[in-house]
Amino acid sequence: MASAAPTTARPPRRVLGIDPGSVKTGFGVIEVSGATAGYITSGVIQAGTGPFAGRLHTIFTGIGEVIAGHAITEAAIEEVFINRNPQSALKLGQGRGAAMCACASAGLPVHEYTPRSVKQALVGRGGAEKDQVGYMVRAILGLKGALKEDAADALAVALTHAQQDRFNARVAGQR
Amino acid sequence: MASAAPTTARPPRRVLGIDPGSVKTGFGVIEVSGATAGYITSGVIQAGTGPFAGRLHTIFTGIGEVIAGHAITEAAIEEVFINRNPQSALKLGQGRGAAMCACASAGLPVHEYTPRSVKQALVGRGGAEKDQVGYMVRAILGLKGALKEDAADALAVALTHAQQDRFNARVAGQR
Repeated sequence: MASAAPTTARPPRRVLGIDPGSVKTGFGVIEVSGATAGYITSGVIQAGTGPFAGRLHTIFTGIGEVIAGHAITEAAIEEVFINRNPQSALKLGQGRGAAMCACASAGLPVHEYTPRSVKQALVGRGGAEKDQVGYMVRAILGLKGALKEDAADALAVALTHAQQDRFNARVAGQR
Repeated sequence: MASAAPTTARPPRRVLGIDPGSVKTGFGVIEVSGATAGYITSGVIQAGTGPFAGRLHTIFTGIGEVIAGHAITEAAIEEVFINRNPQSALKLGQGRGAAMCACASAGLPVHEYTPRSVKQALVGRGGAEKDQVGYMVRAILGLKGALKEDAADALAVALTHAQQDRFNARVAGQR
């Protein structure tokens, strides 16, 4: 397939990162322009501990509002590998499904990254500690204040996607 | 709380039953009027085996179309208890989450029933075989032909909800 000329500038994109959960869902939005990424917003959707359908609806509408409110062009979500009981995995899967549904409903491509590849992308080591990831997120985006852990994880997966995407673009000769 | 007079007739309701899955999602619609339940439609949404976000979107939009196309007033879904590996549970949870999201997005209450309570309601024994459930679904709804297993399971959970709801209404003096 022919690729674009190397000098073609890509328009800025808005990447939504999601750290899925059945009780708390972290989200983070960055704007990516060439090799730079800027912070737009982040937060945590509290789905509570009530009936499950209501919780999923809260996640679905919450992510939908972030997408609509920030002109998101693509989404990235943590691929979870869980070493817990199947019932916990089922609940987490439902929460993750609600978040992915919101993205797909908005017509967004959804990219998945393992926790290991997020650590590798941000810290340079797949076995990095969680707080090192949070530190790098703040450093890359030039954030001074504290970030909630779920929001930091969501921004981390968004940054991972931006980095992966730049790599793919370079490989395709679109840098 | 005061209940309606015992003679109050309840309007017919359309119940959507869902048998969730990450590859195939069964659905079944019945109309419930007093103590009778009539068959409206049933089928299986094939989400395929492609990228997960696309599969979830297929489930979400498929269930959404059933809800909109048949004036559904309430939904019932099988509560799954799984004795499998967490990764399978996660996938099933995502599919189930997408189906529940579609119901919640349409403003429908979603009721959950365990496989055991479905068997108990239809066959009279929580330990009944799966094909006995299918037989009873066809008998209760007066269906002659074969039903796909996922569609039969979905109709079974819809019938379970109708029965439970009649019971609740009787307890409340609204029969």
